[in-house]
Amino acid sequence: VAQQFINSADGFVAEALEGFERAHAGLVRWNRSPSFVVRATPAPPGKVVLVSGGGSGHEPLHTGYVSSPSAVQVAAAADAVAGPAGVLFIVKNYTGDVLNFALAADMAGRKGATVETVLVDDDVATDTGEGGPGRRGTAAVLVVEKVCGALAEQGASLGQVAAVGRRIVASGRSMSVALSGSTHPGHVHPSFELPVGQIELGVGIHGEPGRERRALASAHELAGLLVEPLVTALGLGRGDSTILVVNGLGGTTGLELGVMFREVAALLDAAGISIERSLLGPYLTSLDMAGCSITLVRSDPELLALWDAPVRTPALTW
Amino acid sequence: VAQQFINSADGFVAEALEGFERAHAGLVRWNRSPSFVVRATPAPPGKVVLVSGGGSGHEPLHTGYVSSPSAVQVAAAADAVAGPAGVLFIVKNYTGDVLNFALAADMAGRKGATVETVLVDDDVATDTGEGGPGRRGTAAVLVVEKVCGALAEQGASLGQVAAVGRRIVASGRSMSVALSGSTHPGHVHPSFELPVGQIELGVGIHGEPGRERRALASAHELAGLLVEPLVTALGLGRGDSTILVVNGLGGTTGLELGVMFREVAALLDAAGISIERSLLGPYLTSLDMAGCSITLVRSDPELLALWDAPVRTPALTW
Repeated sequence: VAQQFINSADGFVAEALEGFERAHAGLVRWNRSPSFVVRATPAPPGKVVLVSGGGSGHEPLHTGYVSSPSAVQVAAAADAVAGPAGVLFIVKNYTGDVLNFALAADMAGRKGATVETVLVDDDVATDTGEGGPGRRGTAAVLVVEKVCGALAEQGASLGQVAAVGRRIVASGRSMSVALSGSTHPGHVHPSFELPVGQIELGVGIHGEPGRERRALASAHELAGLLVEPLVTALGLGRGDSTILVVNGLGGTTGLELGVMFREVAALLDAAGISIERSLLGPYLTSLDMAGCSITLVRSDPELLALWDAPVRTPALTW
Repeated sequence: VAQQFINSADGFVAEALEGFERAHAGLVRWNRSPSFVVRATPAPPGKVVLVSGGGSGHEPLHTGYVSSPSAVQVAAAADAVAGPAGVLFIVKNYTGDVLNFALAADMAGRKGATVETVLVDDDVATDTGEGGPGRRGTAAVLVVEKVCGALAEQGASLGQVAAVGRRIVASGRSMSVALSGSTHPGHVHPSFELPVGQIELGVGIHGEPGRERRALASAHELAGLLVEPLVTALGLGRGDSTILVVNGLGGTTGLELGVMFREVAALLDAAGISIERSLLGPYLTSLDMAGCSITLVRSDPELLALWDAPVRTPALTW
């Protein structure tokens, strides 16, 4: 027996989506088959629409897609929302997601929709230089969705919305650390066990092994291990300004995340890098994994103005 | 070593508050000594102000108080915000909190403030009839804070704001279930261990033992065990309308909470009890405890109109 709120592993995600739709009935609608979630009130005609997704288990991130969305699901979601201004696909860099969104773009194109894609690949732990699948996509997707959504709402063109998304991707990087594994729905034991006193640095949001297993350290030291590679990768220095996301991976308490925010802010203060805007909380989880990720995006006045646009969704509310 | 993001157990809560203040700088200000959190922009003069609090470890609930707030902390918070329209204390029914808020009310009164207190006691698991400390206060406090805050913002009198708070308390009940214990900051092991396959029904938010330890059951059955005593205690029946809170205790995933929302909604649907508004998520946690609580408040048009008032705080955003 899994120590979880669950009826059966088979129906688990569908039942969770049904509850989610019910709880946010004014905001979202869940299409049962193929499974996708759309806003309850359609976007005004003439505006670019956004389609984002990936596996489940990262709630509240892109609730609505079920374990690696199929091309059929993505295409159906696009078909449900597409208008004359076009559709922006926001895709995190995982082989299956990239493939299925590409197929869906073809399918949508054949139905007459104009599609642009922003590929998010922010995880420095997987930055191995040339070749291979490249960096994984993680919490920078939050910034892409929030900012692109705001620009689309203003009536910008598909090209403009895609361009700002790509600008965020180019100037955003993330790094994660796990203090525990995560437990899949219906399973009794976590996907991997971390002995007390050990951490996994550079872990993926699907339980992918980290870059390094090492000894647990203080929050201060862990913050340094996460922030330093981001600052290096983005070439950030004195006078630069950023958007910061301190994200909980699921099982980490609000108090711990507050401590991590403090430590990250102190490191950035010391380096003369300003935090213009921020998020603090569990926004992109890995089921019940204890851990956190830090995302830095180089900011500028245009990004900040879009960041400040009002938003009302189940998860991101400002 | 505790498998947590922590520098030292001693400074843990203060450091978390420092990070919290930094992350929400436009919204809140943390007073270091005595420790309390107030809104960054003072309430307009002439409006009733709310002071709420309790122990830490329940984030995002009433961030700002440190393990059972002392009378000095509460009085200082009241002093920092009190205006001519008076102060409403919102207190969860625990012996220490009740005592310290009462002392603080005396202290504030001697400084000239008018204070009313709403005591929240919604936990049916501790409903033992006459005598004793009475029912514990749990997640109904979310509804009290949201609705009283909205009425105060409208410029209502202290008596009116207190009255609506008491009406919510009288018509709101909660029930919790734990699937795991919680781990205190700096500790390696949880405060109590639940063997796989066992649950604790009617558990408190500080790890107080439940009313009953029993075998794990399906989400559907667990929802029934939580909802039935609430419906009975409130005398809810066909045609009644409610506000529903499906609250995660910290370590439970968004997917599981979605499943629980679905099950609770189905039970209420079957009983002909309508869900007019709802919250779904980890709003009042017990550190990293796996589990959830269900709160039902009997609703009416006045409560719903106040519920719908716009709000912007770090945790409750609509």
